[in-house]
Amino acid sequence: MPTTKLYNELLTYMKEITTLSTCASTLGWDQRTYMPFRAADHRADQLALLSRLIHQKLTSPVLGDLLHNLESSVDPTDSTSDFAVNLREWKRLYFRSQKLPVDFVEEFSKTTAQAEMQWMLARKENRFNLFKPWLEKIVTLVQQQASYYGYTDHPYDALLDEYEPAMTTKQLKAIFTPLTQELTNLMEKILGSNFQPNISILKRSCSIIAQKEFCELLSTFIGFDFSRGRLDISTHPFTTQLGPMDIRLTTRYQETDLADSIFSTLHETGHGIYEQGLPSLYFGTPMAEAVSLGIHESQSRLWENFVGRRLSSWKFFYPYFQKQFKNIFEDVSLEELYFAINYSHPSLIRTESDEVTYNLHIALRFELEEMMITGQLKIADLPEAWNAGMKKYLKITVPSDTLGCLQDMHWGGGALGYFPTYTLGNLFAAQFFHTAQQEISNLDQAFETGKFNVLKQWLNEKIHVHGKRYNSNTLCQLVTQKPLDRSFLINYLKEKYSLIYHL
Amino acid sequence: MPTTKLYNELLTYMKEITTLSTCASTLGWDQRTYMPFRAADHRADQLALLSRLIHQKLTSPVLGDLLHNLESSVDPTDSTSDFAVNLREWKRLYFRSQKLPVDFVEEFSKTTAQAEMQWMLARKENRFNLFKPWLEKIVTLVQQQASYYGYTDHPYDALLDEYEPAMTTKQLKAIFTPLTQELTNLMEKILGSNFQPNISILKRSCSIIAQKEFCELLSTFIGFDFSRGRLDISTHPFTTQLGPMDIRLTTRYQETDLADSIFSTLHETGHGIYEQGLPSLYFGTPMAEAVSLGIHESQSRLWENFVGRRLSSWKFFYPYFQKQFKNIFEDVSLEELYFAINYSHPSLIRTESDEVTYNLHIALRFELEEMMITGQLKIADLPEAWNAGMKKYLKITVPSDTLGCLQDMHWGGGALGYFPTYTLGNLFAAQFFHTAQQEISNLDQAFETGKFNVLKQWLNEKIHVHGKRYNSNTLCQLVTQKPLDRSFLINYLKEKYSLIYHL
Repeated sequence: MPTTKLYNELLTYMKEITTLSTCASTLGWDQRTYMPFRAADHRADQLALLSRLIHQKLTSPVLGDLLHNLESSVDPTDSTSDFAVNLREWKRLYFRSQKLPVDFVEEFSKTTAQAEMQWMLARKENRFNLFKPWLEKIVTLVQQQASYYGYTDHPYDALLDEYEPAMTTKQLKAIFTPLTQELTNLMEKILGSNFQPNISILKRSCSIIAQKEFCELLSTFIGFDFSRGRLDISTHPFTTQLGPMDIRLTTRYQETDLADSIFSTLHETGHGIYEQGLPSLYFGTPMAEAVSLGIHESQSRLWENFVGRRLSSWKFFYPYFQKQFKNIFEDVSLEELYFAINYSHPSLIRTESDEVTYNLHIALRFELEEMMITGQLKIADLPEAWNAGMKKYLKITVPSDTLGCLQDMHWGGGALGYFPTYTLGNLFAAQFFHTAQQEISNLDQAFETGKFNVLKQWLNEKIHVHGKRYNSNTLCQLVTQKPLDRSFLINYLKEKYSLIYHL
Repeated sequence: MPTTKLYNELLTYMKEITTLSTCASTLGWDQRTYMPFRAADHRADQLALLSRLIHQKLTSPVLGDLLHNLESSVDPTDSTSDFAVNLREWKRLYFRSQKLPVDFVEEFSKTTAQAEMQWMLARKENRFNLFKPWLEKIVTLVQQQASYYGYTDHPYDALLDEYEPAMTTKQLKAIFTPLTQELTNLMEKILGSNFQPNISILKRSCSIIAQKEFCELLSTFIGFDFSRGRLDISTHPFTTQLGPMDIRLTTRYQETDLADSIFSTLHETGHGIYEQGLPSLYFGTPMAEAVSLGIHESQSRLWENFVGRRLSSWKFFYPYFQKQFKNIFEDVSLEELYFAINYSHPSLIRTESDEVTYNLHIALRFELEEMMITGQLKIADLPEAWNAGMKKYLKITVPSDTLGCLQDMHWGGGALGYFPTYTLGNLFAAQFFHTAQQEISNLDQAFETGKFNVLKQWLNEKIHVHGKRYNSNTLCQLVTQKPLDRSFLINYLKEKYSLIYHL
C-alpha cells in the first residue's frame, strides 16, 4: 500500500476523533452556558459515552497499525513538515493513551467527578475535611498516573508533559525561584508607595446590557471574528473550539464589577484569537492545534494585560467607554481609569489578582503540588502549608480555606501540573510582546487609533499559523531569537509599575 | 442465557443509541439557535458522523441477534406490556434502518445540513434559485429513500410511515378531500361576514424584552417546567428533546407582531408539555417516546388553539397582559383582544394562518409533495405550482417565493411526508379536547382561574404516560372511544367562528 493512501486513511481516522471531540465540546459549552439545571445527569451520560468512543478509537490496534506502517516513510532529518509533525503528535497521543489501563482511566474519571462535587461543597461550607479524603485519593491516582506514563528525573515531569510537553520540573524551579524573589521585591516597593489609584470607580453600577455591548465591542476591536464565534455568559469564563469556524468565548457580568467582565472578555478573546488564527485548512490534525497550555495562555494574557491594560489602547477605548456608560464615569479621566485597572495589591484569590502578584499565587501552587506528588506534604497539612506560603510570598493572612487552598477547581478535577502553565503564559507573553514592539513600528500609535490588527497579524504569522509544528521552547526561540527568559516579564512589570506608582 | 439478561443487554444497547441521538439533538438545537453562520460546514460533518455511528449501531448484527433471541419470549397475546412495546418498536426501527445503506444515510444528513443553510439564505434574499439545486438533490434522495424502504401502493406511503406509522396516502386523501371543501366553505362564509375584528391592535409595537417575559409567563402558566427546559429564539420555532430532563423550546420575536411570538410559544409549549409528560424513568426506550408526529402536533395545537385562543383562558391571561404591556393596550377590552387573536382570513404564511385556513395550507403542501415524489412536478416549476395552489385553495396571490414556497424549513431538512401530520394533529386535538371537556367538569371555569393543570394532568394520564404503547389510531380510540373523525374539528370551528363572525 503506498504511503499516501495509508496517510490519507490515518487523516480520515484522526479527523473522526477530532470531530467527536468537537461534539463533546459543543455539549460541554452548552452545559456551562444554557443547559437547564436538572439536565446534568443525562449530560454526564452523553459526555461519558462520547469520551468512551474517543478513547476506543485512540487505543485501537487499527490506529497502532497505521502509525506503525507509516513509520518507515518518515525522513529522519525532517521534523517540521506537516507529515512529520502530524505523525509525531499522533504517535505521542497514541502511546500516552496506551499507557493508562482502562480501569485506571475509569477510576480516575469517577473519582474526579465525585471529588469536584465534594470540593464545591467543601468550598461553600469552608470545610477542608470534606475534601481531604478525595484529594488524598486524587494525589494517589496522580502518582500512579505519573508512574504509568513514566519519567526520568521527577514524577512531576510526567504530569507537566500533559500540559506543557517541552518543560521539566527542573527548568520550572530555575525560573520560579528567582522570579518569586523579584516579584516579591516589586510588590513590596509598590506597597511602600504613597500613590493609591481610586479603584472605587470600578465598582460603580453599570447595567449588564451595557457591559455586554461594551465587551462585544472590545472583543471586535482587538480582532475577534464574530462570524465564526460567539461571546456568551458562564460562571467561570472559558474558551472552547467547537469547529474550525466556531470559537466560543464566555465571560460573566456583575452590575458592580465592570473590570471583571472587561478583563475576562479580553482574556478569553486572546484565547479565541489564537484559535481563530490556527490554520483551519489543517483542521483535524495537530497542525491546526495549539502548541501547549503555556502558549495558549500567552495569547490570552498578551491581549488581557499587555494590550488590554495599556494606556495607548485605552486612549482608543476611552471615548467608546464614556459613550457606552453615559453619565456614570463623566468625572473619571483616562489616566484615573488607567490607574484603576492597573491597581496592584496582594490579595487572596488568584483569578482576581493583578499582573505583579499573580505569579506568586502560581509559585505557591507549584511548590505545594510538587510536595504533594513526592509525598513530602501530607494532604492533612495542606491548609497550614498554604497559609504559610501566602504569608511568605504575599505577606497576607488567609482567613479561611474557602479563600485559601479550596479556591481553585483544578485539584478536585485531577489537574496537577496545570498551574505552572499560567506563569509560563505570562513569561511567553512578555517575551513575544517585547519582540512585537521591536518588529512592528509604532505599535502604541497603532493601538491609539484602534489598529490592533497589526499585532494580531504579527501573532497570526509568527505563532498561530504553525499549529503544533514546533514545541513551546523552539517556537519561543524562532519568534524571539532567544530561549524563554524571565527578564522580559520582570522588566515590563518594573517599568510599567514604576511609572504608575512613582517608584 | 436467561431472557432478563438478554433484555438488559438490549436495553443498554438501545439506550446508547438514544444517548447518541440526544448528542445530535443538542448539536441541532445549537445550529438553529446560537451557532455562528460560518460554522455550518463543520456542524454538518459532526451531525453526519453521529448519524453514521447511530446507523451503524442500528444496523449491527449484534442488535439483530439480540432481537432475534428475544423473539421467543414474547407472549403473542401481549402487545401492550413494556417489554412487548419496546421489542415491537425496536424491531420496526431495526428493519427500517437495515434498508438504508450507510453511504446513503451520510449523504442525506450532509445534504440536508447544507441545504438548510442555503434555504435560509434563499428565503432571506427571495432567491428560489439558490435553493433549487438543493431541493432537487433532496427530492432525489427522498425518492431513493422511499424505494429503499419499499411500499405497496404509493411511494409517499413509505415517507408517511416515518412520521405517522398508522397512516396511508389513500386514507389521507379520503380525509383531505372533504375537509378541504368544508373548510373552504367556512372560509368563504367568514369572508362574507360584516364583522371585522380590529387586528391592528396586534401590530402595536411591544418591546422584545417585554414579549419575551410574557411568553415565558404564558409557558409557565400552562405548565411547562423551566427547571428541565428552556425557551430560546430561532428563525423557525421548534421543540427538541436533549435528554429526559432537557426539553428546549424556541420562538421568535418581532416588535410589531406580538401574536406571532405568543402563539408560537404556546404551540411549542404544547410540544414541550408532551415531552415533559413522557415517563422519564423509561428514557431510552419507546415507552418514553411520542406516538407519532400527528399525536405530537395534537398536543401543540391543543394548547395553542383550543386553550390558547379561548375566551376563558384569556380571562385569566388578560390582567397579566395589561400589566406586562403597560400603556399599550389600555383601550383594548378582553373581547376585542379575543376577536383579534381569532381573526380568520386567507393569508400567505402557514405558521401565521388561523385555525380555519391552516389546513388548506397543508392540503396544498400534501398535494405538491405527492407530485414532487412521483415526479409529476419538476422542482423548477414548484414556485408556479405553489402560487396556483394558493389561488385555488386560499384565493390569494403570492407576491414572492419568500412568502411562498420558501417559507417552510421542512423540505430543506429532507422532511417530505411530514406536513400532513399537522392536519392530523388538528383533527386529533379537536377530538381529544372534546373528550376532555366531557370528562373534566367546568374546564372553562378552571381556565378562568389559571388552573390549566387539570387539563395537563388529564393529558398526562390519558396520552403522555403511554409513550409509544399504542399507535395513533388505537390511542385515539382508547382516549375518545371513537376512531379519528374530522367532524370534531369541523364542528368546533363552525361553532366558534359562527359566534365570532355572526354567521
